Amino acid sequence: MKTSIATVCMSGSLVEKLRAAADAGFDGVEIFEPDLISAPESPEEIRSLAERLGLTLDLYQPMRDVEGVDEAAFRDVLRRAEAKFHLMRRLGIDTVLCCSNVTTATIDDDEVSASQLRRLGGLAQDYGIRIAFEALAWGKYIDDYRRAWRVTQLADHPAVGVCLDSFHILSRGHDPRAIEGIPGDRIFFLQLADAPALSMDVLSWSRHHRLFPGEGSFDLSGFLTHVLRTGYDGPVSLEVFNDTFRQIDVQGTAVHARRSLRWLEDAVTRSPGPDAPAGYASLPNSGAPSGFDFVEIKAEDTSRIEALLSAVGFTPRGKHRTKPVTLWSAGDARVVLNEQHARDQVPHIAAIGFSVRDAAALSERAAELGTPSAYRRTYAGEQLLDGAVAPDGTEIFWSSHGPGAEPAWTAEFEHGATPPHESPVVAVDHVSLGQPWQVVDEAILFFSSVLELSAASSTEVASPQGLVQSRVMQSADGAVRIPLNVSPPILSGHRAAMPQHVAFTCDDIVALARSARTRGLERLPIPQNYYDDLAARFDLDDDFVATLSELDLVFDRDGDGDGEYLHFYTATVGNLFCEFVERRGGYGGYGAGNAPVRHSAQRAGAARADSVRR
Amino acid sequence: MKTSIATVCMSGSLVEKLRAAADAGFDGVEIFEPDLISAPESPEEIRSLAERLGLTLDLYQPMRDVEGVDEAAFRDVLRRAEAKFHLMRRLGIDTVLCCSNVTTATIDDDEVSASQLRRLGGLAQDYGIRIAFEALAWGKYIDDYRRAWRVTQLADHPAVGVCLDSFHILSRGHDPRAIEGIPGDRIFFLQLADAPALSMDVLSWSRHHRLFPGEGSFDLSGFLTHVLRTGYDGPVSLEVFNDTFRQIDVQGTAVHARRSLRWLEDAVTRSPGPDAPAGYASLPNSGAPSGFDFVEIKAEDTSRIEALLSAVGFTPRGKHRTKPVTLWSAGDARVVLNEQHARDQVPHIAAIGFSVRDAAALSERAAELGTPSAYRRTYAGEQLLDGAVAPDGTEIFWSSHGPGAEPAWTAEFEHGATPPHESPVVAVDHVSLGQPWQVVDEAILFFSSVLELSAASSTEVASPQGLVQSRVMQSADGAVRIPLNVSPPILSGHRAAMPQHVAFTCDDIVALARSARTRGLERLPIPQNYYDDLAARFDLDDDFVATLSELDLVFDRDGDGDGEYLHFYTATVGNLFCEFVERRGGYGGYGAGNAPVRHSAQRAGAARADSVRR
Repeated sequence: MKTSIATVCMSGSLVEKLRAAADAGFDGVEIFEPDLISAPESPEEIRSLAERLGLTLDLYQPMRDVEGVDEAAFRDVLRRAEAKFHLMRRLGIDTVLCCSNVTTATIDDDEVSASQLRRLGGLAQDYGIRIAFEALAWGKYIDDYRRAWRVTQLADHPAVGVCLDSFHILSRGHDPRAIEGIPGDRIFFLQLADAPALSMDVLSWSRHHRLFPGEGSFDLSGFLTHVLRTGYDGPVSLEVFNDTFRQIDVQGTAVHARRSLRWLEDAVTRSPGPDAPAGYASLPNSGAPSGFDFVEIKAEDTSRIEALLSAVGFTPRGKHRTKPVTLWSAGDARVVLNEQHARDQVPHIAAIGFSVRDAAALSERAAELGTPSAYRRTYAGEQLLDGAVAPDGTEIFWSSHGPGAEPAWTAEFEHGATPPHESPVVAVDHVSLGQPWQVVDEAILFFSSVLELSAASSTEVASPQGLVQSRVMQSADGAVRIPLNVSPPILSGHRAAMPQHVAFTCDDIVALARSARTRGLERLPIPQNYYDDLAARFDLDDDFVATLSELDLVFDRDGDGDGEYLHFYTATVGNLFCEFVERRGGYGGYGAGNAPVRHSAQRAGAARADSVRR
Repeated sequence: MKTSIATVCMSGSLVEKLRAAADAGFDGVEIFEPDLISAPESPEEIRSLAERLGLTLDLYQPMRDVEGVDEAAFRDVLRRAEAKFHLMRRLGIDTVLCCSNVTTATIDDDEVSASQLRRLGGLAQDYGIRIAFEALAWGKYIDDYRRAWRVTQLADHPAVGVCLDSFHILSRGHDPRAIEGIPGDRIFFLQLADAPALSMDVLSWSRHHRLFPGEGSFDLSGFLTHVLRTGYDGPVSLEVFNDTFRQIDVQGTAVHARRSLRWLEDAVTRSPGPDAPAGYASLPNSGAPSGFDFVEIKAEDTSRIEALLSAVGFTPRGKHRTKPVTLWSAGDARVVLNEQHARDQVPHIAAIGFSVRDAAALSERAAELGTPSAYRRTYAGEQLLDGAVAPDGTEIFWSSHGPGAEPAWTAEFEHGATPPHESPVVAVDHVSLGQPWQVVDEAILFFSSVLELSAASSTEVASPQGLVQSRVMQSADGAVRIPLNVSPPILSGHRAAMPQHVAFTCDDIVALARSARTRGLERLPIPQNYYDDLAARFDLDDDFVATLSELDLVFDRDGDGDGEYLHFYTATVGNLFCEFVERRGGYGGYGAGNAPVRHSAQRAGAARADSVRR
């Protein structure tokens, strides 16, 4: 797969963009005209730099409003075009993107557009240049790729072909199957973008909200499959207008973008139909993790977390034989407390371990997807954990061991107690990670491409400090669930303002809450107004509500009334709290309706803690 | 005008919201149910607090999905409603908002909805409560206020009336004139929200993008006039769901919200038609400023700005007799350089002075609009300047003096040179202020309500660090123009990353650029690629382009080809640069097409400056 990326996808100067694209492993780039115009480097310098970096310059773009105009306007089109063809020769670029007319078109006639494209093609040919004609989704007359292809056929010129852009086709709901009717050598260029399902005008959607493949709602694997069936063998290029990617670090975006194409390449090889196209390789595959292996909580002093775990019946399993790290377990839930190199750090989730079928395959997969490796210092005789760093900085590790079996690495912990046969807490239910708004799209691609988790639809809950967007990444069987919560932008940088949490499953939440209270667990207090409302909403028994209220339990019920969710939260310690949940009757959610009450109570708790410190 | 605000408009806890609303001078609040549910205070405590703060609790909201349902579902509605009526009695609230059914309605029949509202009204009446029935813009069957009113008429119960919400009516383009057909005493509540002109689904638009009156595109003065003609004399209440206001400081939002209603009250008194409604007062009025009086640049050391002004022919007019402040002038342009209390401050725009018709009236107006006062220490014999602090912290001053005449305060500067009769720079053209994303909506209301400037439509330019939104506030004659530029969120807090600027008008930009070069002015260098593109775009004469390129001048032309704009930028000093412009043929814009090149060149300049410092 020959990969390319439009410079408009990235932030920074043109030179920075070229360097980042090359570093991330792209084969080529599309030059977005405004990036060149703003560059202090001459076209010859840009050409030379790209050569040295090993990047091809695949496309110059865009040339606008070239057809459907009157003769006087078309003469000006030719004048402008000739200046740009001259420039393209200096750059050494042989394909130019011409968009369907948005502004100046006055003639809605395929013959006129075709004849003008033919004349433009003649001029281009003199410069050794090809015209890739693209129907914009908001083109004045030509807004459908099938019409752009008809006009191109009418133009009947070897230097005139089409450019296909997944956004312009899929955003309008146009059937991409007709692509297979276009000969591959008449498709001069292919641009891919994903996008979230939004209901807004297509121009704003396109200019601000495009995403890299795998992050939105488009079926890009199917789309690309249609294109490849034509015999197209040109670059697969990303053109993603996105307000966030325009702002954030260019190197990170380039790596992220390249990962999306590697993911897509793999998806195409697995799509139904004929054999995988030549030059397209699958990724090594381990499937989604079968469960949580461990959660690692790091802090300079983890004793408040030890007290918390002890109060809910976790067993201290001892200290690591070479590191200031302890292990606690309850049922299948394992929590590693790490005080190594943690000066001034408050408790937070530093790493998550997963049980996987084939750890070696997953390590290869992660490497092919260009993820940064996570590192744990190891000693002779200790198990080496492979891992990757997620976009928010959380380290992700994986190892192969059967479900239920204790993993081998637990033997590295010494002088601990033996866990009882039964414990009130039975497993990790989910791990919720707060995401800065800049990285959440990349995080979705990270968890879906590396760990093969799928993204549930987005939900939104109100907090006293703004709306929190939540997207759950989960395995098909629900054994692994990772809600990603996006903090409001105002809190960016205040990591502690939107704490992470670990939720543990139990079989009897009322018994657990009672025993934990006896052992001094500090719960998050839930206001009485919540219980008054609960009784009104669900028509609950008074005694049941009284029990919930007594124990600060919160409650939710499925839409169909079968599943119920009872849970309670601990007070926040550092940047972390714990949740204990009992799922009844196949309840599959996370009690999102209770999150506003939790956020308010946590904020009140933080304010009290602040006033104590003062 | 009795004013009210829904607690959902603001951030923080319910108690914080009540305090902020009272401090800002609201008469009452609507209690948004989730705010109460999350509050640790009992309903009785909330009621007592509101009483002590002098706030009425005007509305409890919302009750959802109450009509259009089958009998079994309606029995559950009555059960839920009774619990809420009981709660409302504890709160002392006598009106509840019932929205048209979105989710559970199965019967699209006015008679059914009316009969269910009648039964609900009967129950409400037992509790001394009134039902305000509102058509949501996305109601399943009832989505038009005219239908909600028909159903209310059919219900024919004294405890059932309508709630009107400007968003639900104007967002759908429904004609608000039919409001005048509703008797005022059947309108039980009035909610106002403005909104920007967006093309997206009405639910997302409503939940995320509402604005306070005066900040969007709705004609709220006309809307309110229709309502007042019915004889409605209840609260005028703000219900503004906005992602930003949910995040930012609650006190600031409450003051801002209250200002929007004071502005609207004034607008209604000036709307055409019958006399102003009783209890509605106009604001004192000075009209828009006739021009810029001065621009104040503040820094610990202003000498680089002095060098800059000197190079473009400004005259040093001396030092203030009591403060470390100097005055420079050229034509009608006056720049005050202020080194007082400026330790560690780099050059930035600290204040703007305006010439106004009636400074005393404007001071009263600003006070009635609840703006914070700006303060300048004055001494006997010095002119007292009244002023206000804009939302971004820039101080705004005003004084009355005729256009062209030197203001009296210039006499406070001593030992200066006498300005020549003619100078290359003739006036301030515009002052551009970078705005953090959190305050731009408030800034638009500030400049429109206090200074009576109007907001041009929004434009957007690309920079290497993200998209910059720009909104120009201007007087009708164009004498005062203030572009407000919103930095990308990633730069929030990096004040210097998006510099402010002052643009000065001149009559001969080529002569000014040449003479400034001779005097050593440091210009912003413009890349040659820009000029190659310019020649292609506008078909310009080679010599002309060569002159532009030689002098780093940039160029724009009006859409109709009549107006032209030639301008150049200085290097950035601190958080500031200057622009010099020549407007030809009535060009009315700001050369927005040149902004991406400027942003790129400024970023390259900043990188060079960084590398020198290292």
